[in-house]
Amino acid sequence: MTGSVAIVGLGPGAEDLITPEVQQALADATDVIGYIPYVARVADRPGLTKHASDNRVELDRSRHALELAMAGARVVVVSSGDPGVFAMAAAVFEAVEAGPAPWRELDIRVLPGITAMLAAAARAGAPLGHDFCAINLSDNLKPWEVIEKRLRLAAEADFAMAFYNPRSKSRPEGFAKTLTLLNAVCGDDRPVIFARAVSTPDEEIRVVPLPDCTPDMADMRTVVLVGSSQTRIIARAGAPIVYTPRSAP
Amino acid sequence: MTGSVAIVGLGPGAEDLITPEVQQALADATDVIGYIPYVARVADRPGLTKHASDNRVELDRSRHALELAMAGARVVVVSSGDPGVFAMAAAVFEAVEAGPAPWRELDIRVLPGITAMLAAAARAGAPLGHDFCAINLSDNLKPWEVIEKRLRLAAEADFAMAFYNPRSKSRPEGFAKTLTLLNAVCGDDRPVIFARAVSTPDEEIRVVPLPDCTPDMADMRTVVLVGSSQTRIIARAGAPIVYTPRSAP
Repeated sequence: MTGSVAIVGLGPGAEDLITPEVQQALADATDVIGYIPYVARVADRPGLTKHASDNRVELDRSRHALELAMAGARVVVVSSGDPGVFAMAAAVFEAVEAGPAPWRELDIRVLPGITAMLAAAARAGAPLGHDFCAINLSDNLKPWEVIEKRLRLAAEADFAMAFYNPRSKSRPEGFAKTLTLLNAVCGDDRPVIFARAVSTPDEEIRVVPLPDCTPDMADMRTVVLVGSSQTRIIARAGAPIVYTPRSAP
Repeated sequence: MTGSVAIVGLGPGAEDLITPEVQQALADATDVIGYIPYVARVADRPGLTKHASDNRVELDRSRHALELAMAGARVVVVSSGDPGVFAMAAAVFEAVEAGPAPWRELDIRVLPGITAMLAAAARAGAPLGHDFCAINLSDNLKPWEVIEKRLRLAAEADFAMAFYNPRSKSRPEGFAKTLTLLNAVCGDDRPVIFARAVSTPDEEIRVVPLPDCTPDMADMRTVVLVGSSQTRIIARAGAPIVYTPRSAP
């Protein structure tokens, strides 16, 4: 009998942001597969085998999950956040499409999770309260020219923006170029939110006017939100509230 | 003593897509406020007062929530999906900014939820697996010209797109214009996903090539996802899988 693959989102970090649907899938699993720090978030228990692998081996990991399911395992592939947003779901389906025909008929489900940009937005107020876009700033899998074009068009469309993977050790210069471009095309001091490790003990939220942003404000654990031209700041005794109104002029 | 306001997301419909964090806020509430069908999703219990109101009174509802909190209530404002995505969080902050100064110092928190586009994407595969945008097609609060401009630029940027509020009885023509525009600027048969009432007993998912889409395929309970030029369909015995690869040419 063949098994199944559930590609699940563990949310941004806190236990109480994992949906009951995902908790149930983890409880039913025989095998959990994913990137080392995400697999580490799943508690050990008898009958559960954990397969942790390093970053950048998403296709190998996907094939492994599909092979285990073909052999009868109930496999859970774990992603941080939501599995459909710059995470494992697309990788698994790339492997399915390129793989043997029987893989297509497997029971494969995607179970959504709280993605980083929405957890970050909630902490800051409602910066994504109107039309917005989500862009992966990593140029591992696309040319930088594509990223630059999307940034320009997103600014012209006056979207609020969420950036995933803004900066890594191997790509220190992309986020610096992003900030230079945004300052040139936006030409205002709209708020930028640097949300690091949201809902974990390491959480840090900074709200910085665009001209004052520097590349070192983001790292691998940061999601960056950029307001639209309409985004507002409500000053108060505590941390400011950042929100984008529901209406556009 | 003043109370608090939690603006929470109930997810798309299923009970097991509500985060434990939101469940806890509902368990601690003295008052729940929101649009009639969302308030109806919260179980009655002793000590909980439910305040249901009609659509399009978001600012009145927000002020009511803030006044109750000033008087000591633990208020939960409920949205479907995520409260920060075309929902109540922006409305509450608009009321805060325009309201009396003490409202700013209230304990106001936003608790994220599973937003409709991500629940819909999970059902279809991973259509938002690469860069994407979210656009509210309602022209209640913005001119149609702004929507049209954003659609054109989003297509030029080759974003996958998610459309909220594609069609209502009072605005039957907007979605028809959207389809005409997309056919003109995209010029291909990329897949469109009509996801209605996801995770409820009324759920319907349809995958339709862009040229074959008609306005009646969407209603008030539908979120519409449009693939990018790179989005792929994996045919199989069951429903097809729609996904957008992680790489861009």
